Amino acid sequence: MSKPKNNAEKVATAKRDSLMELLKMEGSKIYNDLEKGQFPQFYVPSRSVSNIVYDKKLRQYILGKSAGLRSSRNMAQLRSFTQLIWLAFFANRLIQEKKSSTLRDIYYSSQAFAIDFEDQPESDNIIVDLEAVLARPREDLHIFPEERSSVFGDLTIEYTVPGYEGRRTNLSDHPDGYLIGPSLSTAELVDTSAELVIAIEKGGLFTRFVEEKVDKKFKAIIIDTAGQAPRSTRNLLKRLNTQMKLPVVILTDGDVYGEHIAMVIKSGSANAAHLRELTVPDAKWVGVWASDIEKYKLPTIPMTESDIKRIYDLQKDPRYQEGIWKKELEIFLKIKRKAELEAFSKYGLTNITDKYLPEKLELAKSM
Amino acid sequence: MSKPKNNAEKVATAKRDSLMELLKMEGSKIYNDLEKGQFPQFYVPSRSVSNIVYDKKLRQYILGKSAGLRSSRNMAQLRSFTQLIWLAFFANRLIQEKKSSTLRDIYYSSQAFAIDFEDQPESDNIIVDLEAVLARPREDLHIFPEERSSVFGDLTIEYTVPGYEGRRTNLSDHPDGYLIGPSLSTAELVDTSAELVIAIEKGGLFTRFVEEKVDKKFKAIIIDTAGQAPRSTRNLLKRLNTQMKLPVVILTDGDVYGEHIAMVIKSGSANAAHLRELTVPDAKWVGVWASDIEKYKLPTIPMTESDIKRIYDLQKDPRYQEGIWKKELEIFLKIKRKAELEAFSKYGLTNITDKYLPEKLELAKSM
Repeated sequence: MSKPKNNAEKVATAKRDSLMELLKMEGSKIYNDLEKGQFPQFYVPSRSVSNIVYDKKLRQYILGKSAGLRSSRNMAQLRSFTQLIWLAFFANRLIQEKKSSTLRDIYYSSQAFAIDFEDQPESDNIIVDLEAVLARPREDLHIFPEERSSVFGDLTIEYTVPGYEGRRTNLSDHPDGYLIGPSLSTAELVDTSAELVIAIEKGGLFTRFVEEKVDKKFKAIIIDTAGQAPRSTRNLLKRLNTQMKLPVVILTDGDVYGEHIAMVIKSGSANAAHLRELTVPDAKWVGVWASDIEKYKLPTIPMTESDIKRIYDLQKDPRYQEGIWKKELEIFLKIKRKAELEAFSKYGLTNITDKYLPEKLELAKSM
Repeated sequence: MSKPKNNAEKVATAKRDSLMELLKMEGSKIYNDLEKGQFPQFYVPSRSVSNIVYDKKLRQYILGKSAGLRSSRNMAQLRSFTQLIWLAFFANRLIQEKKSSTLRDIYYSSQAFAIDFEDQPESDNIIVDLEAVLARPREDLHIFPEERSSVFGDLTIEYTVPGYEGRRTNLSDHPDGYLIGPSLSTAELVDTSAELVIAIEKGGLFTRFVEEKVDKKFKAIIIDTAGQAPRSTRNLLKRLNTQMKLPVVILTDGDVYGEHIAMVIKSGSANAAHLRELTVPDAKWVGVWASDIEKYKLPTIPMTESDIKRIYDLQKDPRYQEGIWKKELEIFLKIKRKAELEAFSKYGLTNITDKYLPEKLELAKSM
């Protein structure tokens, strides 16, 4: 391995080394068992519903103490035992060779090793098991999501991917925005003049925000979540919040799905209760609220049956029991109508950036 | 208007001026009618199925000679007449103010002017009418798609959007790729050392191609079409082909939808028969062919009923009556199985770039 040349590379190397140490530690347990003449085994934290609890202090779902034994002695567990060991081996190779992959790649790659996965959902599930065993997101194992969203603003990053080590880019250089792929996800955040991050649900509005210089007027980094924010985007939001100390505000369509997009950025999902890298507990959902629909007299669309069912579902979620989260759900249910971010165009294309956004950012200060 | 400073700005200004001239010409016809005391009217080329024909010379669908009269005298046409006039007025303003918008924006913006659209499909339809009247794509009217795909490689562009005029970027600087949004779509293509464009259907593979330096090894610009290529991406492919004289090859999943993604890049769709900016007639589909599935012993997935129905549909399309287009459809129908691009990972993550791609590029030379 070549000598680290700069800070970004040092951080990346340290991260990689600690992960490989972790993999080695898990591996040596297997060897130890074998040397002692025992069937190797390990524990996988249980991800069943009964073991997922909402932690008020961490403000996210976490796993409880229950864990399942996976033993090579047990015929019924031998299959998933072998799958997980192979995955750890393969991830180790990806990390060493600095190659990225996707969930789908992993499924097909397994066939080269005669590892038997029934279908991709089975291999996806083992990948989440390994995340839970290591308490590390799969992106650290070089397994990246296919979905990409994008970012724009005065943020200088330094790449750590092969061929680009030490190179820097400022994310305001391309006004259509920068894709949040493996290179950006593994880059170091070097410097910014921004004082705020604005996450917005839609690409069209993201472009409007760039065009209207929201980045300069409000000293903001703008992130297009492209609907439900992909994991890599949630992780970038977390890093901007913790490493660069930037507050995060979220703008979504005025409907129950929009409200939940904001909630997932804030407190994650039950599916990722075994991870800590994907939540921004202090993120603020600033709109479009149900109450904004009347306040701003927005054009609306009637809710569908499935919108309404979704509201009833979320009302059972512990995170929707107080504050605006509870209140806005109730108003949605009462008015049974929803409004899109583009609805502000009724008042002119720049109404959303000239009027609505400044009002909401002012409000956010007291939230 | 400030004096053009350089070539990119000159080209952009000339394009804008010619479009505004066109709008002015259409507008003066209305005024002339009014001055003559006549009810204003105009003709919209018919986009009904009976007026769409495949042109073997242009190698794309085109509209026939049939056109519908839209007259303000006719009560039944007054509504769509007014909608179209308003849209032309609004587009004129977007162009003058250099603001971008989306189909959805247009729908909501109309409400500020008390223009009555029943729903967004009605306004979308009028936008296509205006495209047909002007024979210009809506992107020239600053109405851009929400969907974005991306591009990577040694291509220097020069922006023409406000605030970035004259600034250049090389599209190999961000290894996750550059979004093809309004700024890239309106930028001038300045310079490239590439000798080829490779369009690929999937983001995961796009990343693999960047990682494996396909851009350098094959002197290629790589484009992620992200499934069915958005119009802005098809337009960029056309410009790379005609302005930069680069051949275009296309790689898709090995299924009937993949084959059609390639066909739409090559010869457009019946929906856009009124436009000439969205086709690359010399583009070559190089894989994954149905015949590759056996040749490369790829892991496969059984076809669904809807896959098979789609094959029968395409077999009626005039474009699928010869060559590989016809032959591969027949093989798909015979084997009733499909394979994804990721299937090559069975032979190692870099098999697709080390083996399959060079073989296919060699083959493309004689296609």
